[in-house]
Amino acid sequence: MAISLRRALIGAPLPTARALHERLSKVVALPVFASDAISSSAYATEAILVAILAGAGTSRLSAVLPIGFGIFLLLWIVSFSYRQTVLAYPTGGGSYIVARESLGIGAATIAGASLLIDYILTVAVSVAAGIAAVTSAFPFLRPHTVLLCAMAVALIALANLRGVRESGLLFSIPTYSFVASMLVTIAWGVLKAFSGYVPPPEPGVAPLAPPLGALASLPLFLALHAYASGCTALTGVEAISNGVQAFRPPEGRNAAVTMLWMAGILGVLFMGVTYLAWAFHVVPSAVAEGSGGETVVSKITRMAWGGKHGFYYVVQFTTMAVLVVAANTSFADFPRLSAILARDRFLPRQFANVGDRLVYNYGILTLAVLAVALIAILSGNVNGLLPLYAVGVFLSFTLSQAGMVRRWFRLRTPGWRHSAAINGFGACVTGIVLLVLAITKFHPSDANVLFRLPFGLRLPLIGDSVRAGAWLVVLLIPLMVGMFYRIHAHYLTAASQLTLVGYRMPPPPPNTIIVLVPSVNRGIIPALQYAKSLGQDTRALHIETEPEATPRLREEWDTWGLGIPLLIMESPYRSLVAPLFRYLDEVQTERRHMVTLVIPEFVAVKWWHKLLHNQSGLILKLALLRRKDVVVTNVRYYLAR
Amino acid sequence: MAISLRRALIGAPLPTARALHERLSKVVALPVFASDAISSSAYATEAILVAILAGAGTSRLSAVLPIGFGIFLLLWIVSFSYRQTVLAYPTGGGSYIVARESLGIGAATIAGASLLIDYILTVAVSVAAGIAAVTSAFPFLRPHTVLLCAMAVALIALANLRGVRESGLLFSIPTYSFVASMLVTIAWGVLKAFSGYVPPPEPGVAPLAPPLGALASLPLFLALHAYASGCTALTGVEAISNGVQAFRPPEGRNAAVTMLWMAGILGVLFMGVTYLAWAFHVVPSAVAEGSGGETVVSKITRMAWGGKHGFYYVVQFTTMAVLVVAANTSFADFPRLSAILARDRFLPRQFANVGDRLVYNYGILTLAVLAVALIAILSGNVNGLLPLYAVGVFLSFTLSQAGMVRRWFRLRTPGWRHSAAINGFGACVTGIVLLVLAITKFHPSDANVLFRLPFGLRLPLIGDSVRAGAWLVVLLIPLMVGMFYRIHAHYLTAASQLTLVGYRMPPPPPNTIIVLVPSVNRGIIPALQYAKSLGQDTRALHIETEPEATPRLREEWDTWGLGIPLLIMESPYRSLVAPLFRYLDEVQTERRHMVTLVIPEFVAVKWWHKLLHNQSGLILKLALLRRKDVVVTNVRYYLAR
Repeated sequence: MAISLRRALIGAPLPTARALHERLSKVVALPVFASDAISSSAYATEAILVAILAGAGTSRLSAVLPIGFGIFLLLWIVSFSYRQTVLAYPTGGGSYIVARESLGIGAATIAGASLLIDYILTVAVSVAAGIAAVTSAFPFLRPHTVLLCAMAVALIALANLRGVRESGLLFSIPTYSFVASMLVTIAWGVLKAFSGYVPPPEPGVAPLAPPLGALASLPLFLALHAYASGCTALTGVEAISNGVQAFRPPEGRNAAVTMLWMAGILGVLFMGVTYLAWAFHVVPSAVAEGSGGETVVSKITRMAWGGKHGFYYVVQFTTMAVLVVAANTSFADFPRLSAILARDRFLPRQFANVGDRLVYNYGILTLAVLAVALIAILSGNVNGLLPLYAVGVFLSFTLSQAGMVRRWFRLRTPGWRHSAAINGFGACVTGIVLLVLAITKFHPSDANVLFRLPFGLRLPLIGDSVRAGAWLVVLLIPLMVGMFYRIHAHYLTAASQLTLVGYRMPPPPPNTIIVLVPSVNRGIIPALQYAKSLGQDTRALHIETEPEATPRLREEWDTWGLGIPLLIMESPYRSLVAPLFRYLDEVQTERRHMVTLVIPEFVAVKWWHKLLHNQSGLILKLALLRRKDVVVTNVRYYLAR
Repeated sequence: MAISLRRALIGAPLPTARALHERLSKVVALPVFASDAISSSAYATEAILVAILAGAGTSRLSAVLPIGFGIFLLLWIVSFSYRQTVLAYPTGGGSYIVARESLGIGAATIAGASLLIDYILTVAVSVAAGIAAVTSAFPFLRPHTVLLCAMAVALIALANLRGVRESGLLFSIPTYSFVASMLVTIAWGVLKAFSGYVPPPEPGVAPLAPPLGALASLPLFLALHAYASGCTALTGVEAISNGVQAFRPPEGRNAAVTMLWMAGILGVLFMGVTYLAWAFHVVPSAVAEGSGGETVVSKITRMAWGGKHGFYYVVQFTTMAVLVVAANTSFADFPRLSAILARDRFLPRQFANVGDRLVYNYGILTLAVLAVALIAILSGNVNGLLPLYAVGVFLSFTLSQAGMVRRWFRLRTPGWRHSAAINGFGACVTGIVLLVLAITKFHPSDANVLFRLPFGLRLPLIGDSVRAGAWLVVLLIPLMVGMFYRIHAHYLTAASQLTLVGYRMPPPPPNTIIVLVPSVNRGIIPALQYAKSLGQDTRALHIETEPEATPRLREEWDTWGLGIPLLIMESPYRSLVAPLFRYLDEVQTERRHMVTLVIPEFVAVKWWHKLLHNQSGLILKLALLRRKDVVVTNVRYYLAR
């Protein structure tokens, strides 16, 4: 029954030979790999606004426009830089692969760790933001945020367990309808703003300062923090580079074209939302409200269409849908990267096992469980999850591009100087952003300080709702790298102990067969016949817990014992284990002496019948688990009714 | 480590030969077996008052005095009747034993079921009432009632797992100090009442009517119900008869003397509390308050000593202590009765296993778990638990005494007519009380009616706080008897299938040894040597999940395969189970053909190393659990580091 349920949910098994045919066209690959990046436009502008608001007044919110433009530029730098990676690695050029090839295994494992963490965060952030879009439209659903998130993650995981082609088809519609509905909303909003519409001023909100003036008047640290916060817009840009091999041939070229489509769409949407946030004087909902506040995209849409009706709901639903789909990007990448790490012996080998639907089941399930746990811990609060993000992304950006620079210098293919310059510029810019990100994670602007560190840095409390526990991610990366190395060391040690090179086979050890006789009845006959058939040094052992029953047992043994010598051990404390171990010690005096312990077991028909019989066999088995050179063998006798 | 923790808590194992020495003197046996009965004085009077108050006004509360006297008489009738049982059964004469011998197995199982249920209830009621004594003194502990109850049950269970002698010593002090402090309080209270003290009248409480007048003016059904409620005073009277064999010889005589001591003490305490409840005009706390109200004993003590200070706290603590100890009576009886039932094959045989401290571990643990569950379900509310009580007790009283009557008529020993008259009178009286109890359980006085039954009876809602779900107990007894019979039937069937009488031994089946070869390395060598040493039809099987690795495997097999023929099965869906089953089907064509499946397993040093290896062996083992005539054998290879 479990099997047929599995079939219905996941589908019939696929043979290994079908692997090549599960490839994606560009139109299908875009939603599969780019939805993460594109959907970032749903929360990145809000992250900038929240950062400005936390450190300065509402009048400075207009700085979102120049800061947004700076991020827009960064997007293109990173995209062009990655375009080269995609072309150079047609079999998949994730940061881990690039760093491993050009920077060595140390940098590669750092990249691997930061990517794995970010895939988990992508799922958590995207799903939480998607559900926030729904609860913005329908506030009565807010108390069920975590449950809704968990259901969404389960749904995506299930789709991925079915296999990648179906996922592509399943997820195209949401992405394209999100892009379309956002473009229409932005166009309409821009028209409205150009035609002189000014929204009614909210109480307590100061009039906006001019954008560049607002930026110039921000404290430097705050400006950098706001910029770093907005960099969540770039999360997911690297997704295509990990999945090049899933494209139809020519893989590299198709992936590169898709990469630029993605950058174009994301750029337009992000700048459009940012422009409207400025034009409509949007103030983000108080951070204290957590996931309870209305999203910035919801406010913009409401203002563009003049209220919560009709097309407003279309935008909220497609936003939800694309964010849920964005989580799917990680469900393509996390299992693939963990399989690569597993093949390199940095993760348990099970992650490299291909399931019967040609997908990495272990990776999919691990990702789903960790993402749901993270969402549950932070109660599905997007503004609590976002600060954890971006550090890992920019770390892997920087490593990947630095690796590409090394690669150009090594290969010196035609035009290598030009390419190295592009990747070098990208590496520098993302490196600087990474530095800004890391520093701002350790420098909370408000009072929630846990420890004071040197250089005026401070470790915030985990309870800080804006940058809660973000420093944990900075610490987590070296911890994960350490774990990779311990796993690697174990596999190397195990391999060295298992190699047959230079191995001298020891002589076969002697083997004594001991059959346990709790009482003489029909149920032990198969075990006796079996033990005798092994045809060597066979003995029978009875452990005496009821001495009064022994004479009858001896008598019956004479008739039914098949001539096997019977030994009776006393057990004054009524224990089975102690006398058995005493006897084993007597038998196994040599250094290597195998004992085969044959335990008759009788199997009841109904489950509750099991409760009616002593579970001595199980107890003995557990007790013998750690005893060397003992092989436990259950010979079963089946009751008919 | 688990073993040394167990030693510290439970003590070192005791040899079987020490069993006889673990016997009790009368002074120690009284607290062990009579504390249940004696401690009933802490709640029985309150049960009568609650019943009167629920159906009539406060002025009729004086009926408690004649009703209490009626219960006092019943106590002596039952005690004298049981005294004869104790003398007649020096090896233990619980209702089950008596009924089995004289009334047949049907009546015996009914008695057994009702006793088991009542032992669970004794633990639940006593512990809940004991904790209520504490929370009467310290109301701030009330919210933790269930936790405190669970801790008390765990403590008693632990003491019993250590063994009976230590329990006796541990529990003497609370019982004797309860008796002493109650006697002093009652004496002081009676003096105070005789010297003309009248407590200040509470608001809304009518002056008391004369006792007999109040009784006469009660509706008959209400009077019967109040009497039945007070019969909880008699719970535990039968305890000594179950434990006769734990007394020092002469067991019967010693137990009979202890029986009369017990009846005397209980009679004085119960009548004393009842008298003072009348003399002090005590009104029980509203039932709606549940466990939140002050107990009647607490009110009496407070009035006798003029407030909550000094000796008041001594009484509350000794009340708590004796009630906790009373629960211990059931911890002596439940395991003993379940062991008897297990030996008669009406309960799982594990209940008859004597643990290494010479106690029935299974019974002790089962009782503790069920009692805590019951307390948790009813939130530790004594007035919710009490109504469940008494039905089972009086059912077993009646069966036991009826059995004694049959026994006297059968044996006709000297003086049998006199003895039969005593037991016969007891049986009649308790039978009538049983009838009253059963009817009142199905007849709630208030509006919480679930079903209307014929004859004006009504099934109350489980939520009814006074007699909540008491009818469940009435239904539970036949259900348990049914369970006994199903268990019995299984043991009989199993025995008939296991008997060697008339058994013709089949010829030994052929045995094919198949060793699974996932890959060729040092770890499989012990398995190969072992499989070859079984020296019969030995084959090796490789299931091909990575076809590209097969040529190398074949090559290595030529060097290391010990000449065992290697078969390679394709697995297009990368599953291990399906190809293995296909091969087993090929081998096991005859009706009985054993296959010994040797699976090499390599054992890592650290627990987390296990997570780094495929658990294929475990998966295969689970898959083969239900396949007949396959013996799975793991041969382990131990990694050194």
